[in-house]
Amino acid sequence: MKLYGSPGAPCTARVLLCLEEVGAEYELVTLSMPTGEHKGPVHLARNPFGQIPALEDGDLVLFESRAISRYVVRKYKTKASDLLKEGNLSESTMVDVWLEVEAQQYNPAISPIVFQSFILPKMRGATPDQAIIDTNLEKLKKVLEVYEARLSNSKYLAGDFFSLADLSHFSYTKYLMATPYGSVFESYPHVKAWWDDITSRPAFKKVAAGMMGS
Amino acid sequence: MKLYGSPGAPCTARVLLCLEEVGAEYELVTLSMPTGEHKGPVHLARNPFGQIPALEDGDLVLFESRAISRYVVRKYKTKASDLLKEGNLSESTMVDVWLEVEAQQYNPAISPIVFQSFILPKMRGATPDQAIIDTNLEKLKKVLEVYEARLSNSKYLAGDFFSLADLSHFSYTKYLMATPYGSVFESYPHVKAWWDDITSRPAFKKVAAGMMGS
Ligand SMILES: N[C@@H](CCC(=O)N[C@@H](CS)C(=O)NCC(=O)O)C(=O)O
Ligand SMILES: N[C@@H](CCC(=O)N[C@@H](CS)C(=O)NCC(=O)O)C(=O)O
Repeated sequence: MKLYGSPGAPCTARVLLCLEEVGAEYELVTLSMPTGEHKGPVHLARNPFGQIPALEDGDLVLFESRAISRYVVRKYKTKASDLLKEGNLSESTMVDVWLEVEAQQYNPAISPIVFQSFILPKMRGATPDQAIIDTNLEKLKKVLEVYEARLSNSKYLAGDFFSLADLSHFSYTKYLMATPYGSVFESYPHVKAWWDDITSRPAFKKVAAGMMGS
Repeated sequence: MKLYGSPGAPCTARVLLCLEEVGAEYELVTLSMPTGEHKGPVHLARNPFGQIPALEDGDLVLFESRAISRYVVRKYKTKASDLLKEGNLSESTMVDVWLEVEAQQYNPAISPIVFQSFILPKMRGATPDQAIIDTNLEKLKKVLEVYEARLSNSKYLAGDFFSLADLSHFSYTKYLMATPYGSVFESYPHVKAWWDDITSRPAFKKVAAGMMGS
């Protein structure tokens, strides 16, 4: 299995974390975004939208980090590692609900904050737009209020079991924590405890090291 | 099964279409958005984000239209109707990829156009912002170029079989077709043929009638 991407890019990191969690054998092929390698014909054949990441597994070529994540988790499912719970209709449904919440509610709020407060200044030497940060911080707080209530009732987002829904939050949140805005989590004790719990997993530590170092 | 929503709201219509496609028995409970029923405590217990739709099936209460759609399709799966193809790893993976494309690429471009050119003027008596329409029309065209190439190689988005990935595009596209911007599809003959094909299905005709009438 070959993953094309960049270890520092949040969507690549989402898939890397899945690969590490399930213990898959894979090769990471780093594409150079500054030189536009992701917009060249070779990568466009992998992902017609010219984005990273993309995954090749034999004849199967796929893209969109959340779809790749489902594939990896499904392919390497064992009794010990079953992050989609597809054998159980009500559990898998709650995993799907909270995966959608990540994609539709959490990500639209957190990703502009990370882009403005981390990626622009630290990776591109550019100045952040404070108004964008402030608007999205308000959105993120509303989302975190819902998470606080949810995580007061269950240990993880989909229920009392760790799942792909938890994992999928990692990479953007990790970058947020490297900015002053990470302190927003201090107001939500159950969210904070959940974050400390999931980031203590060995796979999370390993992927985090590669993200921040790059 | 009870679906809470409004037949004219695109995310409700996505789920209605799934329910009709699989032939589920259900009751649609219409919430009044102008009076803020979706923000009241009864509905917040169903969906803590205060949005429609939400689905109740016995003890299971779920929200996010794409997660509800997966649930409905999985629960009512038969040999004749298998819109997620979960028995086949490579087919289900391509369904997941194109479901993500809908959520991450198609929807962010089409939904602001529909909001500005249909919902604001026709449902709320407000004036659309032409700059938002124009920017997103350019985005949508880029996405449709990718779809045109894809649908030149396979009859449907995930392959040569109809799936939830196709279905999920219906409601926003139906509204786009009711505006002058629907003509953008004329430049993409394979996309147009795909649209004519899927909208000729009985379930699509039934749900379309309820959307436009409301
Ligand atoms: N929805 C996509 C988003 C991927 C994405 O935005 N990738 C970025 C890097 S983090 C990229 O390739 N940007 C270049 C571009 O969009 O042209 C996914 O989840 O894989
Ligand atoms: N991601 C959600 C979006 C749902 C959504 O935006 N619903 C709209 C009606 S189409 C709504 O309830 N809007 C009220 C609000 O967001 O406060 C889904 O797919 O179900």
